[in-house]
Amino acid sequence: MRQSTTQITIDTRRQGLVDITAPIRRWVDAQAMQSGLLTVLCRHTSASLLIQENAAPEVRTDIEAYFERIAPESSSYLHDDEGPDDMPAHLRAALTQVQLSIPVIDATLALGTWQGIYLFEHRRRPHGRSLALHLIGD
Amino acid sequence: MRQSTTQITIDTRRQGLVDITAPIRRWVDAQAMQSGLLTVLCRHTSASLLIQENAAPEVRTDIEAYFERIAPESSSYLHDDEGPDDMPAHLRAALTQVQLSIPVIDATLALGTWQGIYLFEHRRRPHGRSLALHLIGD
Amino acid sequence: MRQSTTQITIDTRRQGLVDITAPIRRWVDAQAMQSGLLTVLCRHTSASLLIQENAAPEVRTDIEAYFERIAPESSSYLHDDEGPDDMPAHLRAALTQVQLSIPVIDATLALGTWQGIYLFEHRRRPHGRSLALHLIGD
Repeated sequence: MRQSTTQITIDTRRQGLVDITAPIRRWVDAQAMQSGLLTVLCRHTSASLLIQENAAPEVRTDIEAYFERIAPESSSYLHDDEGPDDMPAHLRAALTQVQLSIPVIDATLALGTWQGIYLFEHRRRPHGRSLALHLIGD
Repeated sequence: MRQSTTQITIDTRRQGLVDITAPIRRWVDAQAMQSGLLTVLCRHTSASLLIQENAAPEVRTDIEAYFERIAPESSSYLHDDEGPDDMPAHLRAALTQVQLSIPVIDATLALGTWQGIYLFEHRRRPHGRSLALHLIGD
Repeated sequence: MRQSTTQITIDTRRQGLVDITAPIRRWVDAQAMQSGLLTVLCRHTSASLLIQENAAPEVRTDIEAYFERIAPESSSYLHDDEGPDDMPAHLRAALTQVQLSIPVIDATLALGTWQGIYLFEHRRRPHGRSLALHLIGD
């Protein structure tokens, strides 16, 4: 049994879902484990992680619109240090999650056919988002 | 230290919560680990996982009604390839989660007394839902 | 490779977020692992876990107010065995999560600078909340 860890940075350009399946899969494949457990931690509180549909791009547009609707920009928040998109970002991160664990089975991530891993950027301006990756197995 | 993995299929009949604690516990018990970490991944984007109250059935009815209310069927989604329950299913999955990790302590899942593991089917029609299970420990 | 497990109890006084980063960090540090994976399970269905902003206290006030708004006390729930704050507690737990996994890298939890771990108490009255902690690594 062994472990691998790394940190990667994802550059986001705007609010919304960024497909990060490929870089994560590449790193997992490079560790050459037959069986194991991958954990990804988004080290921020205004961006989050989501496993979602990787085919129809309209799903992502609808998800983005939905979270804008249920956790809207508003003047009623106490916290707005970094602007009107600050507090909604924390709420959208709270409604999704900042960490995911995915089994590795038969030397590959056990994601379903239609599942991709997404970084969900909740701030309007571009950010460099740091992800911690941990893999244990053999 | 060792690992076990398996895949199980849960047949759902309608929208709502299906108690999957028993089959998961059975598989974990069969691995005979004193201490470890179980991870369950639901390999779909229109069904999800929830740890919730296992006693009063009204809790489950209220949870189902709540998610129908906050992520309703609607004609305003861009994506409706598979019908009006398609996009709400993705949203309800995004608001809950598709993976769970639960410690095994003293040879048993460390769930609280009132906690059960549920598969949350978000589509109206019956589906076979594939779950990947991973256990590491000894 | 080795494992450590423990259970800790957090006493809550009222609804809202309780910072539990310090006791969790202390226990992780005491296990003296260079690299590993921490999992925390909240063994209840009316309290949950959240990784959120640890600096501005207004963020926590806004988060608490938000969850009161989207999963409000109401007379329309079927389940109210333990009072009007019973069912909203289950819904707020379902919208967040009861388990978290966080990598340990370079002998420390890989949390971002602004991330803290919070127990989210959803009931009005004081409770003792049991958390199961599991660490695997070396």
